Amino acid sequence: MEIIDGGVTSAKGFKAAGIHAGLKKAKKDMAMVVSECTAETAAVFTTNKVKAAPVIWDQGVKESGKAMAVVINSGNANACTGAQGLKDAEDTAAAAALLLGINKNLVYVSSTGVIGVPLDMVKIKNGVNAVFPLLSSHGGRDAAEAICTTDTFAKEAAVTLSISGKTVTIGGMAKGSGMIHPNMATMLAFITTDAVISSQTLQCLLGDTVEDTFNMISVDGDTSTNDSCIVLANGLAGNDEIVPGTKDYDDFSEAFRYVLGQLAKLITRDGEGAGRFIEMNVVNALAKKDAKLLARAVISSSLVKAAFFGSDANWGRILCAMGYSGGNFDPSLVDLSFSSSKGTIDTVKGGEPLPFDEEKAKEVLLEKEITVTADLHQGTASATAWGCDLTYDYVKINGDYRS
Amino acid sequence: MEIIDGGVTSAKGFKAAGIHAGLKKAKKDMAMVVSECTAETAAVFTTNKVKAAPVIWDQGVKESGKAMAVVINSGNANACTGAQGLKDAEDTAAAAALLLGINKNLVYVSSTGVIGVPLDMVKIKNGVNAVFPLLSSHGGRDAAEAICTTDTFAKEAAVTLSISGKTVTIGGMAKGSGMIHPNMATMLAFITTDAVISSQTLQCLLGDTVEDTFNMISVDGDTSTNDSCIVLANGLAGNDEIVPGTKDYDDFSEAFRYVLGQLAKLITRDGEGAGRFIEMNVVNALAKKDAKLLARAVISSSLVKAAFFGSDANWGRILCAMGYSGGNFDPSLVDLSFSSSKGTIDTVKGGEPLPFDEEKAKEVLLEKEITVTADLHQGTASATAWGCDLTYDYVKINGDYRS
Repeated sequence: MEIIDGGVTSAKGFKAAGIHAGLKKAKKDMAMVVSECTAETAAVFTTNKVKAAPVIWDQGVKESGKAMAVVINSGNANACTGAQGLKDAEDTAAAAALLLGINKNLVYVSSTGVIGVPLDMVKIKNGVNAVFPLLSSHGGRDAAEAICTTDTFAKEAAVTLSISGKTVTIGGMAKGSGMIHPNMATMLAFITTDAVISSQTLQCLLGDTVEDTFNMISVDGDTSTNDSCIVLANGLAGNDEIVPGTKDYDDFSEAFRYVLGQLAKLITRDGEGAGRFIEMNVVNALAKKDAKLLARAVISSSLVKAAFFGSDANWGRILCAMGYSGGNFDPSLVDLSFSSSKGTIDTVKGGEPLPFDEEKAKEVLLEKEITVTADLHQGTASATAWGCDLTYDYVKINGDYRS
Repeated sequence: MEIIDGGVTSAKGFKAAGIHAGLKKAKKDMAMVVSECTAETAAVFTTNKVKAAPVIWDQGVKESGKAMAVVINSGNANACTGAQGLKDAEDTAAAAALLLGINKNLVYVSSTGVIGVPLDMVKIKNGVNAVFPLLSSHGGRDAAEAICTTDTFAKEAAVTLSISGKTVTIGGMAKGSGMIHPNMATMLAFITTDAVISSQTLQCLLGDTVEDTFNMISVDGDTSTNDSCIVLANGLAGNDEIVPGTKDYDDFSEAFRYVLGQLAKLITRDGEGAGRFIEMNVVNALAKKDAKLLARAVISSSLVKAAFFGSDANWGRILCAMGYSGGNFDPSLVDLSFSSSKGTIDTVKGGEPLPFDEEKAKEVLLEKEITVTADLHQGTASATAWGCDLTYDYVKINGDYRS
């Protein structure tokens, strides 16, 4: 596996573009990603009971197992918009399908932005017409920029690997950066690959991989109405079909996991107002389920997040969050440490406080990337979750998001 | 039932005091509450797996059904302090018991403050000796001040009611104001009454009442290691014993609920950094369980809380939080409104957005007390939860709590 610069247009036969369609004041707000041939597809969506209109449309596309294009707008989530919202999502797919000369059921639609405001369909249709002629195999970056909302940078990742003598490429893009506490899926993420793989295999792989990547991050504990992770695999790499239980599958799975993991981490790095990136490792747990619950509770705790904002080695809040996580562990066995590029501070041994140098701890915690490790000394399972600190800027951004 | 000014010393035969014992820099940090005779007792404690040492001690006191005193310190939670912490909790009870001439198993101990630092037992024991001679039937206020941490005001409530021709008094005090997301119990709350009632009846009543009061508030989603709600009933009112299934029980229950509800609301009003008090009503739900899940998810959402900080009528975030709450409802039937002393704004009807006057909405939401009502149009169950906004000050207070 080789990590390359790139995104949704890195794999063979994918084109994309991103433009300003007028839904946001000045920034790019509409993207299209298209495969030159019909692709196998898999997708996971939010578990929120309130599902945005495009998610409902996309569930139908996913069911068929085939897709060719995705139209994404930022600036408006088309959520809580009733029957009109559903019609608008379908009309958006139809507008793109008309230009592409394909059935609208092959077109995914994703929206992100403010909830509860009807889409401006004149701008959407004009946007679709404007973005279409710009589609190119170099358009991945523009597309990644166009799907951003409060994101401060575009999020892309790509890798190549060799399968049955053929070069296979996987690329993706994602957007955050608030309402991030994915469950069964994430915020918007789009993955393209030229691998030959069936939609069924892809769906299994996606489900497993999302559990360890997008479902292990949190910015603010809110699971969005629009979370979607959509994958297109157009088969143009010409490799032997990737099937479960083979080395090819394992190799592809590793590369796929890298791309999703990278995008997930980029989302938390760019969490709304975030100043620090936090990695929480739980090791030697009785079961993976426990390790995941424990890791995720820690990075979701407002008090833990605020302590990291203040570079405060407040390990008690971490143990407290583990305590209410629902994950099984014995508090009296836990070792806990903080580390960064400035070193490691051991704060708890066998559940009891260790004396540590507060000055040294401050130095470690002033870094931008902090790793916390909780060793449970009970088993062999482990899990990692990613989050960010809670800052004044998070409050500021979300105190007046609509204006 | 008559609401009176007062707290833990309002009921007959209770004395209290609060002093500065040196655990905090300058403020009062130790309180004692004593009944002049043995009292029936009930208590509920945190469900956090990481339980502070005093909680473990107190579980033993509660089991006996009898108690006479509570010693409370602020400034140090005596949590995550291992075997030494347990010994310190017991020694604190023993020090008070010695002065009172009673068995240490009749003395509850509560601690609140920083986690993971051993108690300074010299200061604790000197404090117990210093607070004891100050015990008085007018000392409730001092005690309520001494149990505060980041609280900005002391929290007390009291009522009287007539039972079998006798005046019964119930009073209480509580402290917040961060790590507030109680589960089976709350932050520290102490309730005293002179009613004649058995510990068994009191425990049932407490369990039910906590579910609708302390367990329906949230400041930051973190369930503390020290949450405790302790009740002492010394029987000095001389009423006929209060037993379930009688009008006396219903009257006492109503008064008891008022005191706990009032203390719960005071905690959220004084949530760390809070500028606004939010009441979330869910009405016409299929089941109370659903109504509670829905109401509690809304007041726990960081995004909803930040929107209230910005006086933003962002009802989409409320529907979103309801959507991931796990509570059963049909999004397409929901009506949603905001109200305050400045009027009411209807924002959603049958799940779809209503046009509303943004200026008027701002006026309504700039008030300090906001009520949100979600009408589910499905059944007859309802629930109310209380919370506060998420502010810069919350982040500031928790970014450097230990220093």
